[in-house]
Amino acid sequence: MGKYTIKDIARECGVGVSTVSRAINNHPDINPQTKQLILDKISERQYIPNNSARNLKKTETNTIAVLIKGIANPIFHQMIDIIQSEILSKDYAFILKKVGFDEDETVVASEIIREQKIKGIVFLGGIFTHTEERLKELTVPYVLSTIAPNTSIDGNIYSAISVDDVAESCRMTEYLIENGHKRIAMLQAKKEDLGVGYLRLKGYQQAFKNHNIPMKRNLIIYSDSKSDGDLFSMENGYKLAKKLIASHKDFTAIFAISDRMAIGAIKALTEEGIRVPQDISVVGFDGLDIARYYIPSITTVKQPVEDMARETIYQLFRLIKGSGVNKHMVFEGTIVEGESTRAIKKRGS
Amino acid sequence: MGKYTIKDIARECGVGVSTVSRAINNHPDINPQTKQLILDKISERQYIPNNSARNLKKTETNTIAVLIKGIANPIFHQMIDIIQSEILSKDYAFILKKVGFDEDETVVASEIIREQKIKGIVFLGGIFTHTEERLKELTVPYVLSTIAPNTSIDGNIYSAISVDDVAESCRMTEYLIENGHKRIAMLQAKKEDLGVGYLRLKGYQQAFKNHNIPMKRNLIIYSDSKSDGDLFSMENGYKLAKKLIASHKDFTAIFAISDRMAIGAIKALTEEGIRVPQDISVVGFDGLDIARYYIPSITTVKQPVEDMARETIYQLFRLIKGSGVNKHMVFEGTIVEGESTRAIKKRGS
Repeated sequence: MGKYTIKDIARECGVGVSTVSRAINNHPDINPQTKQLILDKISERQYIPNNSARNLKKTETNTIAVLIKGIANPIFHQMIDIIQSEILSKDYAFILKKVGFDEDETVVASEIIREQKIKGIVFLGGIFTHTEERLKELTVPYVLSTIAPNTSIDGNIYSAISVDDVAESCRMTEYLIENGHKRIAMLQAKKEDLGVGYLRLKGYQQAFKNHNIPMKRNLIIYSDSKSDGDLFSMENGYKLAKKLIASHKDFTAIFAISDRMAIGAIKALTEEGIRVPQDISVVGFDGLDIARYYIPSITTVKQPVEDMARETIYQLFRLIKGSGVNKHMVFEGTIVEGESTRAIKKRGS
Repeated sequence: MGKYTIKDIARECGVGVSTVSRAINNHPDINPQTKQLILDKISERQYIPNNSARNLKKTETNTIAVLIKGIANPIFHQMIDIIQSEILSKDYAFILKKVGFDEDETVVASEIIREQKIKGIVFLGGIFTHTEERLKELTVPYVLSTIAPNTSIDGNIYSAISVDDVAESCRMTEYLIENGHKRIAMLQAKKEDLGVGYLRLKGYQQAFKNHNIPMKRNLIIYSDSKSDGDLFSMENGYKLAKKLIASHKDFTAIFAISDRMAIGAIKALTEEGIRVPQDISVVGFDGLDIARYYIPSITTVKQPVEDMARETIYQLFRLIKGSGVNKHMVFEGTIVEGESTRAIKKRGS
């Protein structure tokens, strides 16, 4: 038995040593039949992993990496708190890595996998623009958290936890429509956006369609295509609202696609002597704490961040333990009514 | 030469192999005379680091760990951006680690040093309550950033980058005094606090002393000793302000020791029908973006976060390269006037 090595197991099973190591270490990234074959062979040969195999295992510290895109977004801070405590409670270490807006998180992830031998990854924030090829290169389990699935990619190869941005955006827009607003301006990401900006635009369009109200395309204010950095910021909301005001378009409400943009918009309106909500109603998206503490408090769609954070880790550990298949979980938001909106008498648009 | 090993150098110099490795790798944690002795010996013997020594070096990835206490504090997000890009520009990797408010960051740091072989550490946020013993256990260079020096500890063993909390708090209080305020309430951390809470209290006291105005101790509203978590939050500012209002004490201004607490305080005042600044002036501390975007915008002391972040990395790399001694750098803040304060007619206190 002492002479029987991991290489012998590998040879007899017709697989590589690393595949045997995966089977031993219960790594999810292995064909279940192959795994069974290897475990049977190990059992048959009464093979005890030797030093080299144990060392192989030892170098893999039990660490989960959380890659965060948009660290200034307060929605993630609460999630990180929960994610961290859930990870630590499972006796895993936790590392947090900031990814720039112009970085490809799958490339960053591949580097970490190579260098730090982590057990799993949470991608927090950002948008789903990764190719199937890139995702397949990730050799550890991962969950996309607060990132909506990309329907053009095989759903079986990734796990995603998110709200349905189309449905929630539709819900928020319908709230305004039901309060008598028909000319609703939208503060948006770039026109070319394929992430939450695009999805929230679709929800906005859907709401008008549902209520048989013509949507005014010229009330959609896009971010400058050339701008980089955080488009969901207060600064960008402020800029877009100033542009909207200067255009002298006719509108009764503004839907900013983040709470921070809504804050910037309310500040801009206030500076121009336009009262919120007496003159213009403003809504945001996310349900941040500051939405409650702002003056006026801001009507918004609250994302269930606590539940999403817990589900992210639950799903990741199912994958790590090899007992899970990739899943897409969709959570529902809730409208939180603030002081920034009012019902208006219905009149012709 | 081929036969001459790192062990021979160590033996001939009367030091351990790890000390030789430190000398070779230009590690700062080595006595300069010992280092010179070793380098002379290496030169004399024409010793070329062999595989084992190179491997020793190779396992030390060029990584800097940033340990952040208070990830919800927006002041750190901008700093992290700068710190990360400075680290990456030096071709080092960057990992971010969140430390809980109830965790000892030196313990967390020691674990990381053990497990991940990092080159240096930035401690971002939190308060300086570490013992000399604990700090000496840290075997890689580190800089305390936005953490005021602890005068009871040998200043030569650590580097610190901060504002002078006493001076800045005094500056903020004097601004109010010079605008006619004498009864200035202060929203504080816990009574037992030994960090920024304590320092900002000292600055507040100093301002009254400088102006020969009696300070009213009963206007200092401390956080509940039993509360844990983030005392500098909007929520805590809101709670403390509600308590202050309920006490029916006589005051014309509130100094909240963070901008987020100031937001909570203004919200609480507004809910009680007390106008800011017409009835009560409110000031914060930090100079966050939200202070500008809040309604009313908040008068605050802006910390020079960009400069502090750059200096943190500059100092850390001086230590890593072995060309620096520990330093304490103090940066100066600036008063940013917002809409949350007004000058009042001076009258008797």
